[in-house]
Amino acid sequence: MNPASSSVFMINQKLLPFKFEIYKSKNYLETCEAIKDMTVRGAGAIGSAAGFAMAQAFMQNSDIEKAKKDIENTRPTAQNLFYATDRVYNKAISSNNPQNTAYEEAQKIADEDIASCKRIGEYGFEIINSINKPVVNILTHCNAGWLAFTDYGTALSPIYTARDKEKNVFVYVSEARPRNQGSKLTAWELDNENIAHEIIVDSSAASFMSQEKVDLIFVGADRIARNRDTANKIGTLDKAVLAKEFNIPFYVLAPASTFDLKCKSGKNIPIEYRSEDEVLYQTGPAIEEGNLETILTGNLNSSAVNPAFDVTPAKYIAGIITENGIIKKQNPYKYRKLNGMIRLNQKRR
Amino acid sequence: MNPASSSVFMINQKLLPFKFEIYKSKNYLETCEAIKDMTVRGAGAIGSAAGFAMAQAFMQNSDIEKAKKDIENTRPTAQNLFYATDRVYNKAISSNNPQNTAYEEAQKIADEDIASCKRIGEYGFEIINSINKPVVNILTHCNAGWLAFTDYGTALSPIYTARDKEKNVFVYVSEARPRNQGSKLTAWELDNENIAHEIIVDSSAASFMSQEKVDLIFVGADRIARNRDTANKIGTLDKAVLAKEFNIPFYVLAPASTFDLKCKSGKNIPIEYRSEDEVLYQTGPAIEEGNLETILTGNLNSSAVNPAFDVTPAKYIAGIITENGIIKKQNPYKYRKLNGMIRLNQKRR
Repeated sequence: MNPASSSVFMINQKLLPFKFEIYKSKNYLETCEAIKDMTVRGAGAIGSAAGFAMAQAFMQNSDIEKAKKDIENTRPTAQNLFYATDRVYNKAISSNNPQNTAYEEAQKIADEDIASCKRIGEYGFEIINSINKPVVNILTHCNAGWLAFTDYGTALSPIYTARDKEKNVFVYVSEARPRNQGSKLTAWELDNENIAHEIIVDSSAASFMSQEKVDLIFVGADRIARNRDTANKIGTLDKAVLAKEFNIPFYVLAPASTFDLKCKSGKNIPIEYRSEDEVLYQTGPAIEEGNLETILTGNLNSSAVNPAFDVTPAKYIAGIITENGIIKKQNPYKYRKLNGMIRLNQKRR
Repeated sequence: MNPASSSVFMINQKLLPFKFEIYKSKNYLETCEAIKDMTVRGAGAIGSAAGFAMAQAFMQNSDIEKAKKDIENTRPTAQNLFYATDRVYNKAISSNNPQNTAYEEAQKIADEDIASCKRIGEYGFEIINSINKPVVNILTHCNAGWLAFTDYGTALSPIYTARDKEKNVFVYVSEARPRNQGSKLTAWELDNENIAHEIIVDSSAASFMSQEKVDLIFVGADRIARNRDTANKIGTLDKAVLAKEFNIPFYVLAPASTFDLKCKSGKNIPIEYRSEDEVLYQTGPAIEEGNLETILTGNLNSSAVNPAFDVTPAKYIAGIITENGIIKKQNPYKYRKLNGMIRLNQKRR
């Protein structure tokens, strides 16, 4: 964010991997629209954007109560959105200099996101490193890399740490229909980072897992309930169930700000249903002229139902890797011990 | 097939649902190409096409041994292909009038396919009808409808029977990446048959199953081993594992000609790997001008791995519904009792 113009800059993720472009949002309403239409997406990146949107509202003297509601109504599932909006709002509203406080708090959230993701990478690397194989094969779903956060990411962060520490990893990238954040964003990120990977269709994960070609599963999270049930991109639950069946450790990687201790279980997490057009149409560069084209991919007269997330019950999760340590499945709930952001989170609302 | 010209006519499934066109294959090599490039696809339809290709070779005085090999080399997984090729070859080679015999035998295979599928529909309907609900929700994967066979289909045949008998069904159509035979072919078929359905992305099946929105799973099969392990479209195994986890009966529907009693278990079934371009590119009509366009759907520099089938171990299968009855999971192997085609099959090679 540029505090002078109160503009927010973000990578336009809708254009990746075909085009790299920075989108400049001039006010909180434009930032809301960018969250809604997924110009910015990914739990942490949505959180940062929401924090900056709240700051924009303060800095531009918008109707603050309306702005807070507008921001919170952009997308219902990602906890980081509510976390960041609340935090900037609460800090600024009680300040003598709300404009400056809002900006500083939003920037702090973004900076903390980077630090958290870096530490998640270190904790996650311990899991990778505990596997005594020349190459550790990791399956990830959707994109929980640096595109989805301010930097590093969560599910991909340990993979970058492993690369830096010269532990060989290979990544199965499931495409993550309908919006292909796997084949578009994760593949692009790993390609840029020189990490060996292959794209697979979502439904082939079972086949690779059944053939013992997957050692670990790392996914991100959009919201984690108090009982550790986890909402994440549609297609996470099936990986978790398959992991149980094929004895593969399934880890969720997320900053503590993803926990919503007001949510007792996954049943309380609101699941966003998005347009059927996401399923029925696909956009990409035409091989002929290279212009972006949108094509129909199914039967015109059929409709589609498009839940954007699913909920993975805690029983399938080997551990939740946070910046404060790993909450292992067998351990009793000791959120307090993980202190910091999880506790802070409990106080909100 | 038109015996006068020895031309084979088939629906060009590559163009559906965007265009309905009949492809005319003038000789066995063209039929081989049509099988290879999936102009004709689906276990039974491949079988019929292979039988007619063999007949074309006899009728056009081609090198028969070479022709048989060419046909068998088109696609490795679907058992019906080998079944039909063998059957026409064996009958014609020992006949006084091989040309006529080959044509008649190929036509007989196609006719039997229709009769088998109709009976599979009746047996499958018993399963649907045993569920005492106003609407029975059935999930199917890929396309095992009348497009995939000579008529009726297998997984969809009981659904058509249910419609005829006024038992209400609703079908979840998983899109079946990478070639979208679900959202393209099954959705088109069900649309044409006025059957209520919704398209879902493959990886959302778990979400619907976990919410008790699915009562039954019906899938087809490309090859069934002696121990009942079943090869079918990639994305079948995950549905089977999920079905076990969520207590949903998972049925395989296939004519007896799908059994390969020479295959001891699923491990012996050869799995076809197809081009990564199937994963990375998609073709459909552009919304702007409506011309068919091929677009890139992922990161250009990434590669993809594309197994076309997976193997579902028998333990996940509640029953295999054939034209000779239902082979239930708990029953000992009694293929002989199901007589007819399964036994015949045992003798081949």
